Amino acid sequence: MKVVIIGGVAGGASAAARLRRLDEQAEIILLERGEYISFANCGLPYYIGGVIKEKSALTLQTPQQFYNRFRIDVRIKNEALSIDPIRHIVTIRRSDDGSTYEESYDKLILSPGAAPIRPAIPGIDDEAVFTLRNIPDTMKIDTFIHEREPKSAVVVGGGYIGVEMAENLSHAGIDTTIVELSDHLIAPLDFDMAADVHNYLAQKGVSVILNNGVTAIERENGRLNVKLQNGAVSADLLIMAVGVRPETTLAKECGLLLNARGAIVVNERMETTNPDIYAVGDAVEVTDFVSKNAAVIPLAGPANKQGRIAADNICGGDSRYTGTQGSAVLKIFDMTVATTGLNEKSASAAGIDYDKTYTFSASHASYYPGANNMSVKLLWEKGTLKLIGAQIVGFDGVDKRMDVLATAIRFGAKVTDLIELELCYAPPFGSAKDPVNMAGFVAENVVSGKLKQFFWHDVASLPRDGSVTLLDVRTDTERGRGSIDGFMHIPVDSLREHVSEIPKGKPVYVHCHSGLRSYIACRILSGYGYDCYNLAGGWRLYEAVTKNRRVPEYRCTECK
Amino acid sequence: MKVVIIGGVAGGASAAARLRRLDEQAEIILLERGEYISFANCGLPYYIGGVIKEKSALTLQTPQQFYNRFRIDVRIKNEALSIDPIRHIVTIRRSDDGSTYEESYDKLILSPGAAPIRPAIPGIDDEAVFTLRNIPDTMKIDTFIHEREPKSAVVVGGGYIGVEMAENLSHAGIDTTIVELSDHLIAPLDFDMAADVHNYLAQKGVSVILNNGVTAIERENGRLNVKLQNGAVSADLLIMAVGVRPETTLAKECGLLLNARGAIVVNERMETTNPDIYAVGDAVEVTDFVSKNAAVIPLAGPANKQGRIAADNICGGDSRYTGTQGSAVLKIFDMTVATTGLNEKSASAAGIDYDKTYTFSASHASYYPGANNMSVKLLWEKGTLKLIGAQIVGFDGVDKRMDVLATAIRFGAKVTDLIELELCYAPPFGSAKDPVNMAGFVAENVVSGKLKQFFWHDVASLPRDGSVTLLDVRTDTERGRGSIDGFMHIPVDSLREHVSEIPKGKPVYVHCHSGLRSYIACRILSGYGYDCYNLAGGWRLYEAVTKNRRVPEYRCTECK
Repeated sequence: MKVVIIGGVAGGASAAARLRRLDEQAEIILLERGEYISFANCGLPYYIGGVIKEKSALTLQTPQQFYNRFRIDVRIKNEALSIDPIRHIVTIRRSDDGSTYEESYDKLILSPGAAPIRPAIPGIDDEAVFTLRNIPDTMKIDTFIHEREPKSAVVVGGGYIGVEMAENLSHAGIDTTIVELSDHLIAPLDFDMAADVHNYLAQKGVSVILNNGVTAIERENGRLNVKLQNGAVSADLLIMAVGVRPETTLAKECGLLLNARGAIVVNERMETTNPDIYAVGDAVEVTDFVSKNAAVIPLAGPANKQGRIAADNICGGDSRYTGTQGSAVLKIFDMTVATTGLNEKSASAAGIDYDKTYTFSASHASYYPGANNMSVKLLWEKGTLKLIGAQIVGFDGVDKRMDVLATAIRFGAKVTDLIELELCYAPPFGSAKDPVNMAGFVAENVVSGKLKQFFWHDVASLPRDGSVTLLDVRTDTERGRGSIDGFMHIPVDSLREHVSEIPKGKPVYVHCHSGLRSYIACRILSGYGYDCYNLAGGWRLYEAVTKNRRVPEYRCTECK
Repeated sequence: MKVVIIGGVAGGASAAARLRRLDEQAEIILLERGEYISFANCGLPYYIGGVIKEKSALTLQTPQQFYNRFRIDVRIKNEALSIDPIRHIVTIRRSDDGSTYEESYDKLILSPGAAPIRPAIPGIDDEAVFTLRNIPDTMKIDTFIHEREPKSAVVVGGGYIGVEMAENLSHAGIDTTIVELSDHLIAPLDFDMAADVHNYLAQKGVSVILNNGVTAIERENGRLNVKLQNGAVSADLLIMAVGVRPETTLAKECGLLLNARGAIVVNERMETTNPDIYAVGDAVEVTDFVSKNAAVIPLAGPANKQGRIAADNICGGDSRYTGTQGSAVLKIFDMTVATTGLNEKSASAAGIDYDKTYTFSASHASYYPGANNMSVKLLWEKGTLKLIGAQIVGFDGVDKRMDVLATAIRFGAKVTDLIELELCYAPPFGSAKDPVNMAGFVAENVVSGKLKQFFWHDVASLPRDGSVTLLDVRTDTERGRGSIDGFMHIPVDSLREHVSEIPKGKPVYVHCHSGLRSYIACRILSGYGYDCYNLAGGWRLYEAVTKNRRVPEYRCTECK
């Protein structure tokens, strides 16, 4: 058997190694247009920031190593130009000398990846404008930084790569501004959960310009004048990180079915519409694991798994890729942001009737040094109670809780199942009631009707005409930091003595700092016959979202 | 409704707070024999080590705070002497003045916890012999350390508390020796997985004496002479940490059903054999979630959950406790040890026919600074493939992977399901193929017959008479660090050139450093018609277990 693989990074390299492990006799040819195979894509921003110091660390495998270990015939600087699916032939160009040749295959695996989008705006080809996809891109940026010593940079696009680049440019001593077209950074987060990120970045000295796009890049006094839809910003360096587009020209030209976004359509076995051609990685359409809709979700983990699955099936196995749920994590200085599944926007788009909770829990036992709180948002489908998505913003331990939630989603968990998870507890690592359990407790209270919620976006429209009671149950100290117009103040621990001051027969909307004490207040008042609603996420979330204010920190001792 | 709760720590305090949230009108009395409620049990060793500096940090809730927030009538230094289940009366003694009184109840919750076992050996009552259960115990030890300035300590018992105490005594500048009756520390680990712990503790200066027990504690020249079954060790201070025993005298005397180990028998609703008496926490028998056998597993997380469940049911709900799986984590200096489910010993005891894998994976992308490997052991049931237990020893990220595995077990995962878990990946947090995925890949290879294993305990008995081939595929450098008698040496990357040197028609037993390259070697040789077996866990595990050698570190660059 002869297998040709086009693309030598995550999916292609995984497929090649697995093929060899399954079939010592197969002829395996790995074509890579660039100079490197199996390199550390996700590490590239950290080389620019000086976190990763050696270029050699970025190349996980050399072609020679790959040959020695796996007898893979790796051909770097060999670009597949066309595929003839009838003759089972790939035409290939050697970039060193421009010569071309043909290679036959029995099975072909496409792992072309996705390329950064370079919008067709004036000035996009300026020498100080870069995209980041591979090692040569990285070296170009690194060289530019060392030779030109830019003082300031604009990163266009506030997704994962944009934010990682912004952090690393900061590490390199460069004043950095992120320009983002939508109303918030990191699209898998909802707007409300992104507020803490915006506020934290501001504190770290990274400027964020939202709801604005680049219209042109001009030269002015030797610097870039980056013209925006609204205003302009000057810089010495610009990184374009507005997303990626599947590299599927080759697939299209040989007649494979693509979807509307240009991604290669495959089945669960990673087979394209041609029975001898498989495709994996960032270039393929996947099933969204939660919504079951078709999606394009470029992530390294899925790419690697798909490569392995394609190899299994080529070797006579029957491995299935069951979908991508979009589990992702991002370090932003000391902050961690993680997501899995659907957010409000994608859940709505999928027509799912969902409910949600916001909780704010300590990363580990608050009496053990170093604990910070994390902000957790869960979405579940009403009716089935199925957990459909989660977002967490915080510091230590965020990645752990997200992996637990991602695992729960994979097993079709109900949100109420989170109560029963028995996670490892010792003071340096967690709490006897883990943040995941806490989120489950609150969700169960919502589902069972013990807790009725209102949200930060409801606050402005609550009547201030006395027809409802608005109640802040925080301490005096907390109240001193700021309050919401129209909310009367009775600390939760004095509520029972002052219950007579709350008008009977009117709904009561209650808030505290994070939502825990106001829940207790609601329970107390319910016991006195009041109809109560709790501000989900509390004043903390409300203030962060509506006032762009980091409130006041993630350590929260008063709200226990 | 009037509810009396006996015991004011984890389970009791959780039950009280939940009861109030469910019923504002209930009369709730919380009886606590000691001076503190809801204190930080699990933090006590860290106060002794100076990691937690303020005593106030150990008291999470004061009785006054609990009254203010929840209107719980907290009575510290009030000990329940007896229960009259017919009259629904508890007789209580005030420890301040010795007076007694009666309190009636509609529902009673027992949360008495478990007490440290003090074996009846000579000298157990010496003033330098301590156990650790509560804040007064902690203060006694702390005072002793500050006043007497002990130079050396013996910790008897190498469970979680014993090892935590040993670390913290070291932090306090005291030479510490752990004496453990069995052949390894930390009973939830199997012997082989404990080897790295033993070797690491030795490196950290903590002495470990295994297979030995204390027979007497004598005074000699002002110091303790701790006599062992085999030998003796002298010390200035002794901590007895040989386990706990449920405190169930009260339960027994009022006629509740106890099991053979003295734990209170409850149903899933946390009801005892008396319909008006509930019991929760370390004193109750639970169902082992995996084996479904009755068990006693004292852990804080389950205690808290059970308290909440008892409260729900008292208030007319129907909450169920579905069992304890024994998820636990332990910090040992910078090392982390975590377990969930069954180990080999308990799986065998439960009559489960299991298989196992050992993997050794990086905590995060190896090219990003600070990665360490972790040693992962999985057990699954043959036939059903159900994941039944996991053990991990390593550094950063161990707790995360164990929580993922604990979650998978909770949802009844097959070991092969671990392949599909989509966990969050970015270089600072993990790898595109997470250690959990890797363990799943290897297990799938075992299950599908692609990988046949042998184990460290098989090595000694492998024939050295030429009837089988023993093959070491590590590099020359690795080989130089030590090798196993009788294994010929061909590095994996030279194997194909030297395959003719391997006798045909005989089984080949292969090892490398950690088991990954030897798997590849097995696959290569299988392609040439050989019948191959892979040393699970590799030379690293073999050497650690059989030679008590830390090999050579957890960072592993050559074995990728």
